[in-house]
Amino acid sequence: MENIFLSNMELDDALKLYIKSNLPSEGNKEIISTIDSFQRVTSMPVYSLMSSPFYNSSAMDGIATLSTKTFNASEKNQITLEENIDYVVVDTGDPIPKQFDCVIMVEDLIKISGEKVKIYKSASPWQHIRTLGEDIVENQLIIPSNHAVRSVDIGAMLAGGVNTIEVYRRPRVGIIPTGTEIVEPGSDLKIGDIVEFNSRIFSAQIQEWGGIPVRYGIVRDDREKIKESVLKAVAENDIVLVNAGSSAGREDFTCGIIEELGKVHVHGIAIKPGKPTILGEINGKPVVGIPGYPVSAYVVMENIVKKIVYGFQQRKLEKTKTVEAFVSKRIMSSLKYLEFVRVKLGRVDDKLIATPLSRGAGTTMSLVRADGIICVPQSSEGIEAGTRVEVQLIRSEEEVNNTLVSIGSHDVIMDVAADLMSLREKQYVLSSSHVGSMGGILALRNGETHMAPIHLLDEETGEYNVSYIRKYIKDTDISLIKCVKRIQGLMVKKGNPMNINSLNDIAEVKARFVNRQRGSGTRLLLDYNMKKLNIAPVDISGYEREEFTHLKVAAAVAAGDADCGLGVYSAAVLMDLDFIPLCHEEYDLAVPTKFLQDDKVKEFIEVIRSDKFISELNRLGGYEHEGIGRVIAV
Amino acid sequence: MENIFLSNMELDDALKLYIKSNLPSEGNKEIISTIDSFQRVTSMPVYSLMSSPFYNSSAMDGIATLSTKTFNASEKNQITLEENIDYVVVDTGDPIPKQFDCVIMVEDLIKISGEKVKIYKSASPWQHIRTLGEDIVENQLIIPSNHAVRSVDIGAMLAGGVNTIEVYRRPRVGIIPTGTEIVEPGSDLKIGDIVEFNSRIFSAQIQEWGGIPVRYGIVRDDREKIKESVLKAVAENDIVLVNAGSSAGREDFTCGIIEELGKVHVHGIAIKPGKPTILGEINGKPVVGIPGYPVSAYVVMENIVKKIVYGFQQRKLEKTKTVEAFVSKRIMSSLKYLEFVRVKLGRVDDKLIATPLSRGAGTTMSLVRADGIICVPQSSEGIEAGTRVEVQLIRSEEEVNNTLVSIGSHDVIMDVAADLMSLREKQYVLSSSHVGSMGGILALRNGETHMAPIHLLDEETGEYNVSYIRKYIKDTDISLIKCVKRIQGLMVKKGNPMNINSLNDIAEVKARFVNRQRGSGTRLLLDYNMKKLNIAPVDISGYEREEFTHLKVAAAVAAGDADCGLGVYSAAVLMDLDFIPLCHEEYDLAVPTKFLQDDKVKEFIEVIRSDKFISELNRLGGYEHEGIGRVIAV
Repeated sequence: MENIFLSNMELDDALKLYIKSNLPSEGNKEIISTIDSFQRVTSMPVYSLMSSPFYNSSAMDGIATLSTKTFNASEKNQITLEENIDYVVVDTGDPIPKQFDCVIMVEDLIKISGEKVKIYKSASPWQHIRTLGEDIVENQLIIPSNHAVRSVDIGAMLAGGVNTIEVYRRPRVGIIPTGTEIVEPGSDLKIGDIVEFNSRIFSAQIQEWGGIPVRYGIVRDDREKIKESVLKAVAENDIVLVNAGSSAGREDFTCGIIEELGKVHVHGIAIKPGKPTILGEINGKPVVGIPGYPVSAYVVMENIVKKIVYGFQQRKLEKTKTVEAFVSKRIMSSLKYLEFVRVKLGRVDDKLIATPLSRGAGTTMSLVRADGIICVPQSSEGIEAGTRVEVQLIRSEEEVNNTLVSIGSHDVIMDVAADLMSLREKQYVLSSSHVGSMGGILALRNGETHMAPIHLLDEETGEYNVSYIRKYIKDTDISLIKCVKRIQGLMVKKGNPMNINSLNDIAEVKARFVNRQRGSGTRLLLDYNMKKLNIAPVDISGYEREEFTHLKVAAAVAAGDADCGLGVYSAAVLMDLDFIPLCHEEYDLAVPTKFLQDDKVKEFIEVIRSDKFISELNRLGGYEHEGIGRVIAV
Repeated sequence: MENIFLSNMELDDALKLYIKSNLPSEGNKEIISTIDSFQRVTSMPVYSLMSSPFYNSSAMDGIATLSTKTFNASEKNQITLEENIDYVVVDTGDPIPKQFDCVIMVEDLIKISGEKVKIYKSASPWQHIRTLGEDIVENQLIIPSNHAVRSVDIGAMLAGGVNTIEVYRRPRVGIIPTGTEIVEPGSDLKIGDIVEFNSRIFSAQIQEWGGIPVRYGIVRDDREKIKESVLKAVAENDIVLVNAGSSAGREDFTCGIIEELGKVHVHGIAIKPGKPTILGEINGKPVVGIPGYPVSAYVVMENIVKKIVYGFQQRKLEKTKTVEAFVSKRIMSSLKYLEFVRVKLGRVDDKLIATPLSRGAGTTMSLVRADGIICVPQSSEGIEAGTRVEVQLIRSEEEVNNTLVSIGSHDVIMDVAADLMSLREKQYVLSSSHVGSMGGILALRNGETHMAPIHLLDEETGEYNVSYIRKYIKDTDISLIKCVKRIQGLMVKKGNPMNINSLNDIAEVKARFVNRQRGSGTRLLLDYNMKKLNIAPVDISGYEREEFTHLKVAAAVAAGDADCGLGVYSAAVLMDLDFIPLCHEEYDLAVPTKFLQDDKVKEFIEVIRSDKFISELNRLGGYEHEGIGRVIAV
């Protein structure tokens, strides 16, 4: 329970202050073989050392001869030439003997014997000859300084006789994971352990940026041990990253250690996530303290460490590709920070829609799922829904345009469909967001999605989905792609230790329940059944605990965090839970009728109709698929 | 002197016929450690094996307590909680003991003793708790099949307990360079030798495409030796490339060998360059015969082999980025081929201009210098100047937009300027095309260039450059950036063995001359001086032999291909030639006055004014630089 004293320096100021003064100007170059120079950055201009070709050579198969001997040749006045006196035979690439100055190609020769040919037109001097230096001439600039070598550059340099070149060294980047609670992947896990993976993300990033990652073993929160590891890493590397312990809590030692061994330039940057960052140096080498939350770490790597690694090699930073999109939801932001908000993108009806993802710094999946990043400036309190914004792309624009957007209810079969889409030849991507059935209806109404999976029971008619669409979406003509009938029921621990067999039992045995979020079809189903049975929310302990997917509910039960929850059969099976069926329901996809012509929607329908998808449904269990993929008007 | 029988199959047909039937469907997968999976392509969907976090953990520093104990707490009704009975202290990430269901953050606590705190507002259940599976829930899809693993994916997989994954193997690609005339780079070269570098370009490309290049030693044109090498390579690799010998000449053995050992699917494709290509298979493995000319080879690698290497790994081919540009020169093309034309691109006055580069299949530098490729379809006879075309980008659009285009006269100092530009912080690129002074004037008139280096003597006034601009460019206001005075003279072999001391001597001693192209300032200078001396072109042997740069003229003299040529002092020095000065001339840059405000032009002026540039001028010799960078109105 310590106080936290960090500065709140603006990112650009921190970079300006830090990077220039902390990159080496000497000792960062090496001479390497041209053959091994792919993607390395030249530290000097490369001039050719010889011409290519370095002699005059034939550009054709034919004969090399002297042009003056061919003058006046014509159809009527054919001239006979004698081998080894008037000409020599040459293949493409063969050198032209000094006494000759042109080539006549084989197609223009009349052969009269092994040693004689006739020609019927004159040849101009230097015709069909690749003259010395035609490709590259000695002393010509092949590639300039600060140029990242491409495959063709290697060819040109070798052609120009340049067999070694001077390049910037690839910086060695030492990575020290710290934390008493972190363990290696694959360890026997016990409660409280956190699997260490940031260093593995860093390693891949550094590799991508041309550096050489050097990962050290995990160091627990022990000041002396961390100091020892930092000293070793500084001695062995050009740049050092210390992960976690970069804030100012009771076990955050990094700042003090850098201060002791070198200099801290910045501690605390006005970015979110990523604030508790340390920019330091030891023995003239950059040492960066990186926060522990994976998204914070990612932001710091992309926005700060990348510039250090690039700068060391003089690699040019490509401008991040951006697109314009409309924000689907209000984004609140603090005036204290430049904020990086991950978004999903989808081109719906020719409008690019950006939907903010979870903003938690601990959600790795928000990075995996993100298509882009919106930077909300420090001076802004946020962005209103519907605003046009600039989005930095993480995926290619092509991939974004090929994305089929699905927003609505969750079912594990949407994961299966996503995978099967990715296996098909057309390179479409299915992006599912789980916001519940009513969330899906809303997204359809706002034009934010191509389709919405829903399962909404009309209490009056007992019919599924149709009446909700009619009631809530007036302006757009909607169709329904029939999908599956599935079983909803109570998920309980294996063996059903509390002997729960109905909703009534939950209240009676005081079981701890875990609920789904408001607006989800499953929540509506629960409320409908509770009303029928006259059970009030207060009767059910845990009614207010909300999770967003069937799997999360099942996981809570499996972990013993809750005794039961309502969900689909397949989720219970996946988590090895017992399942008490309550009712069948219809899980369908609502889609604007105009999108039925969209190739991505057509592809999706083909996928759910496919034998592969059906066999996956059977494997998962609890689904009926009669008429799957059938489209009905609403 | 053999006949050539090749088919002329359309590229798309050849690919359709060949690729699908020649990629393995089995044996191309392997299981690897997730840690090493960066950029590998998944062959199965990756579902998480555990939740992350896999227990409920605190999202804040504070205390974990039971929400029911906090109900009714308010400023007026503060509630006291006792450590280890009512709460435990937790740091961010710590597990929440089973008996508690919420976290109160340290900022909301009033500490009254080591073991007691007061709270002044109630806590809701599950507040500030990262619930089990908040990031990733067990059995959730992390990444689908056929997905190239990114750095963040590695993190998410490890967080989800996935420590190994199944991916497509990186194909081993065997590369066999063949040819009796080819030698390794660095060999002692004799006339007729050709340095082997295609295999090194291929290796870099294959690496870039995710394959593993395996280069074999050079095999001379010996059918048995090549066959032996092909058999070995097929046994050791997944794909085999045989370079050169792919046509049907007398020493082209590749096709026959593949036919003998396996099957030739296609021999001869309707592309230019690249026609003599063989698509074959041996033991079910793709074996491709690739033509020897470097540009032909490059075209075949990019358009055919890339698809094979990607297909093996199920990597998705990104669509090539294209831009629209206007062609500056007419491009003629044959109806027999789909033709790939390399172009330089420059954004001049907001119009993207594509200038075709050398179309020779042997000019490696045309690939190095190219910004993009225009595909002229088989059905087209060519493209007229001024036509709007689609250009496939080789460089990034950003780099193209940052390019300062210079078209005009050649001087080696333009290479120096290009290198100095690349060393500066602003990432501008100087692209120089050498078409002579009059070519530069023409390019200015047509709006194809930012500036034109010229040295044009007005025979009447003795003044340089100004009168030509006034005469030939009427519509655009032009300024002149003063550059250097340089010495033109006769370049002769070291020691001047023919004792050439004037233009008259050339005619007299019957020296072999090498000339510059029509329209170049140097050619005009020669003609002017010859006229003054009454020397006729026929008096000078070699007058009709044209080269495009000072360096090429010097190289011809240095190689003994010619006895003398006219050029600048620096070129003579670079090639170690003797130099007989004829006159000084003014080499300046003509630039539309409006472009003087262009940041790239400003940067160029700074470069030529810089100390570094001046010291390079002094090093090269033969330049005066008084007033360099001064801008004068025309």
